[in-house]
Amino acid sequence: MLLEKIEKVNDIKQIEKKDWEALAGEIRQFLIEKISVTGGHLGSNLGAVELTMALHLVLNLPQDKIIWDVGHQSYTHKILTGRKEGFDHLRQYHGMSGFPKRKESNCDAFDTGHSSTSISAGLGLVKARDLQGENQTIVSVIGDGSLTGGMAYEALNNAAKLETNFIVVLNDNNMSISENVGGVSKYLNNIRTADTYLGLKEGIYNALVGTKKGENIITRIRRAKSSFKQLVIPGMFFEDMGITYLGPVDGHDIPGLVRVIQEAKKVRGPVMVHVITEKGKGYAPAERHPARFHGTEPFEIETGIPSKPRTVSNYTDIFSTVMCKLGQRDEKVVAITAAMPDGTGLKRFRNRYPDRFFDVGIAEQHAVTFAAGLAAGGLKPVVAVYSSFLQRAYDQILHDVCIQNLPVVFAIDRAGLVGSDGETHQGIFDFTYLTGIPHMHVLAPKNKWELSDMMKFAIDFGAPIAIRYPRGTAYDGLKDHREPIELGKAEWIYREKDIALFAVGSMVKEALKAREMLKEAGFQVSLVNARFVKPIDTQAVLEACKDHDLIVTMEENVSCGGFGEKVLECMKAGGCNNQFLNISIPDEYVEHGNVELLKKEIGIDADSVVQKILAVTKSLKKEEV
Amino acid sequence: MLLEKIEKVNDIKQIEKKDWEALAGEIRQFLIEKISVTGGHLGSNLGAVELTMALHLVLNLPQDKIIWDVGHQSYTHKILTGRKEGFDHLRQYHGMSGFPKRKESNCDAFDTGHSSTSISAGLGLVKARDLQGENQTIVSVIGDGSLTGGMAYEALNNAAKLETNFIVVLNDNNMSISENVGGVSKYLNNIRTADTYLGLKEGIYNALVGTKKGENIITRIRRAKSSFKQLVIPGMFFEDMGITYLGPVDGHDIPGLVRVIQEAKKVRGPVMVHVITEKGKGYAPAERHPARFHGTEPFEIETGIPSKPRTVSNYTDIFSTVMCKLGQRDEKVVAITAAMPDGTGLKRFRNRYPDRFFDVGIAEQHAVTFAAGLAAGGLKPVVAVYSSFLQRAYDQILHDVCIQNLPVVFAIDRAGLVGSDGETHQGIFDFTYLTGIPHMHVLAPKNKWELSDMMKFAIDFGAPIAIRYPRGTAYDGLKDHREPIELGKAEWIYREKDIALFAVGSMVKEALKAREMLKEAGFQVSLVNARFVKPIDTQAVLEACKDHDLIVTMEENVSCGGFGEKVLECMKAGGCNNQFLNISIPDEYVEHGNVELLKKEIGIDADSVVQKILAVTKSLKKEEV
Repeated sequence: MLLEKIEKVNDIKQIEKKDWEALAGEIRQFLIEKISVTGGHLGSNLGAVELTMALHLVLNLPQDKIIWDVGHQSYTHKILTGRKEGFDHLRQYHGMSGFPKRKESNCDAFDTGHSSTSISAGLGLVKARDLQGENQTIVSVIGDGSLTGGMAYEALNNAAKLETNFIVVLNDNNMSISENVGGVSKYLNNIRTADTYLGLKEGIYNALVGTKKGENIITRIRRAKSSFKQLVIPGMFFEDMGITYLGPVDGHDIPGLVRVIQEAKKVRGPVMVHVITEKGKGYAPAERHPARFHGTEPFEIETGIPSKPRTVSNYTDIFSTVMCKLGQRDEKVVAITAAMPDGTGLKRFRNRYPDRFFDVGIAEQHAVTFAAGLAAGGLKPVVAVYSSFLQRAYDQILHDVCIQNLPVVFAIDRAGLVGSDGETHQGIFDFTYLTGIPHMHVLAPKNKWELSDMMKFAIDFGAPIAIRYPRGTAYDGLKDHREPIELGKAEWIYREKDIALFAVGSMVKEALKAREMLKEAGFQVSLVNARFVKPIDTQAVLEACKDHDLIVTMEENVSCGGFGEKVLECMKAGGCNNQFLNISIPDEYVEHGNVELLKKEIGIDADSVVQKILAVTKSLKKEEV
Repeated sequence: MLLEKIEKVNDIKQIEKKDWEALAGEIRQFLIEKISVTGGHLGSNLGAVELTMALHLVLNLPQDKIIWDVGHQSYTHKILTGRKEGFDHLRQYHGMSGFPKRKESNCDAFDTGHSSTSISAGLGLVKARDLQGENQTIVSVIGDGSLTGGMAYEALNNAAKLETNFIVVLNDNNMSISENVGGVSKYLNNIRTADTYLGLKEGIYNALVGTKKGENIITRIRRAKSSFKQLVIPGMFFEDMGITYLGPVDGHDIPGLVRVIQEAKKVRGPVMVHVITEKGKGYAPAERHPARFHGTEPFEIETGIPSKPRTVSNYTDIFSTVMCKLGQRDEKVVAITAAMPDGTGLKRFRNRYPDRFFDVGIAEQHAVTFAAGLAAGGLKPVVAVYSSFLQRAYDQILHDVCIQNLPVVFAIDRAGLVGSDGETHQGIFDFTYLTGIPHMHVLAPKNKWELSDMMKFAIDFGAPIAIRYPRGTAYDGLKDHREPIELGKAEWIYREKDIALFAVGSMVKEALKAREMLKEAGFQVSLVNARFVKPIDTQAVLEACKDHDLIVTMEENVSCGGFGEKVLECMKAGGCNNQFLNISIPDEYVEHGNVELLKKEIGIDADSVVQKILAVTKSLKKEEV
């Protein structure tokens, strides 16, 4: 086993050239075996094996630095930097992260998670290098999917001015998570196939060949670049910006990659190396179904089938179904995703109503303002997006949707704790950033039926409105509690006294459990399903204050700017001085791990809630004595 | 006067072709005269006179739609749509906005204010048009400065796929507010000057000329496009994406503009019309000093000199000075602006330390992650930015700076109410969106000396930290209160009893006034300068609760997620049930107008604060009775 020789960074340099391909095969095998057990990102990692090896063969880490855009393709990098053992606890609590982490290794130059940040961060490291008189090599590795994100282009625009070396590797697999879209994709495709412009360019070439003047020109071009085709067709936009373009090169040919990276290091200025890779390379199921194997649950290697096939529906399925219904009922309903037709569940809507479905690529900012335009044009747009990615469009929500009070529906998936993707992906800030925006309305459903009901309410609401729901299995309890959704109205599930639990969305389930335990301890406990985080139901809060000693709020959001603070403000404004307990996520990032475990660790599971309540009620009783 | 004939939309179509130029002259004169009195955006409007006229000559508003990127260049559009009279109260409270507003005219198709949104919004309107079977013409007008913003590129990437008409007018004056920067600017420059590639392209052309094969090729090219130069050099990137490129055309030649817009209307697909304009055209002072006349105070027409020369320093000046000092003291200090070297006051730093100054163009997302990269590389970056524009980089602060706890300093200018720019530019959300982010620290200075002290504190703080300060004159009261800045420590300015005012930043000045009035009314009043909004000084709050009946918080931020809510949470957690009054901006956008007037209108000036306090204390006394 060659892989046994790879124990720490730069060990790969001891592997003979003839064995490179075999090592790539072993790494691929290792990845498939490990990820089939733990789950994780597979396709992008299988695609980047040779590219990563070539970078490690040429560069000298940790002095030299690689910034992995998004970062989910960094598994081979982790293998080559002494972290093979980490794969047994990949993405588990206190185990190895699925993304680059500076705190995990000094070979991880910059933390990533969201798309399109690597060129900006890399350029920062380059400028810091230059100003401090250092000379290490800095490489940002970005996919063609990430290149549709606007900030990558902002960064390229700036990198273009550089007069020192900075390598951007464009890892081009013609995919984001699903198929890549748009003009840039087309542009790259043109480069890949090089048959653009109806053969005009070839015509030019043929016309030049054979005359003296023409041959002179060709010689001048050849001297400047490696081929005429390369100058006149591919990468011209990058070249015109001031970025040297090298490529396209085969991303699975290690010696070729090593050569081009060595060449790139010599350029005094920004250089883009265009590498063509195949997502899922070397594992047939992943080659066939790249979207499904982008991020995967544990699976059987033989077949690629999930080890534990899902038998119950998750919130994404519910959303998927209701969107098809809404689409059928009203042809003004249109749907927008930023490169996530599968993840958001919009695929079915796309298949039924292709004209009313828009995949804008990884471009959340555009997605939201585009939706604002659709709404201004008289349609009913639904933006389906993950909570942590919607952060990218904060200004667009505030500035383009809400000032004009446009009826855009935000269907926010992966809200609350998301688990194994960790810090960068936890959807725990949306109540804060959304509720601070005037004209916005924010809802969260307690169970699967309520998500449907809220979507139906939202689509005809006529103003900006967001519904946030968590990753994973849709809760199917409390089926009989299906009061119609009414603006700003909470739902009383149990009406007793002593303690009132105001729970939001996913926390209703925890609140039910907590209530059971508190009942056993002898308390009377009311349970209110908040439904609305903005506007909150002030009447319900003030009513509860009348006959409950303790008001408890429960939410899967950071406390700062969350639901609890709004309830407290409402109590104070109403002159209520009841005891108050805010159950929410503390002011800290939450690492990767199983969601149930994370809830326990940060003290928002039913057990912790009960303990906290008992501590408060004890002090209450003390005061009474 | 031709301008007298322009009373409503489409009146311009009655003006004879021979009079177009004269009308342009009158409009220019009108703009100069009006803006010299009210202040407003001048340079961009003078540059867009002919372009706007041509659009109105060809299009049929309000059916056809124009989306003005940023929107500050829409003055001629306002003149041509029946709003001449509005210029007497331009940007004044309840007067005409300086930006397009749908609620102001049905000829304003989409509200703008921030940069780079117009193509996204336009594409939304195009898709809405197509799905509803309509056929109006939709035009987004975007400047070359706005084109450096990533979301413009996200939108172009999507527009490229269109199979119906959508016109993007690139209004290229080679400027953002200051000089435009970066690779795209270089690319556009190449188009403008067409002398790229060391003459290679010309060489190709010369080689083709004179041989039969070559002439054939040229004919084919000519047939496809209007000139060889145009195909091989300009707009190729856009063409490669799938966007038809027309231009460059002279942006001050009305017949030429009319022709090209008519041509653009015929394209079945996205089309970019590249128009070359001159910022400040026709007014010598504005041509000479485009940055100074981007947005201007009232000025003398003869000389261009401000009517009321500024005699006192504003916060931007203070920041400017302290940055130069910090730069001298520590060569690790670097400064970043997104196209605002003048507005942020970084120009002096740039002149002294050009290597350590980075103008990244209109690209806030990149600016922040680039700063994170600089910090990860060992430098001390300061991002100087306006509060409302930093909204664009919310995810980058959260995801790229704060997860890694990188020492980036945010110097946030134009925080709080900004006045005449209105809704889109009010900096009233930053406490909310910043304090929700773990690891972030948020400060606000009470006066000019404190801004200096806070900057000095921040530069060596070693973690993410933001200092926000308002537009306009720097407060120079309370000079003797200059206790050293200490993490999380508020400053007691007066320590009495009864009422405690906790004021943040600019509100300390209002609190002082309010305190005087309350003293006269017979109250004992403490005044605390909060200094830190995150972390708040819990000790000061709890201390105050001991011997004050009423705690009042005062801030220029929306209440939701603001300072007041944090103080209340702290009181509650400490078991304090004192009366509490939250003085902050209500959950509404705030329109344009004089800042002092706006404060009064929304009830956060000293008078309103006193009235609110008296109302509470009255009810207090009632309770006591």
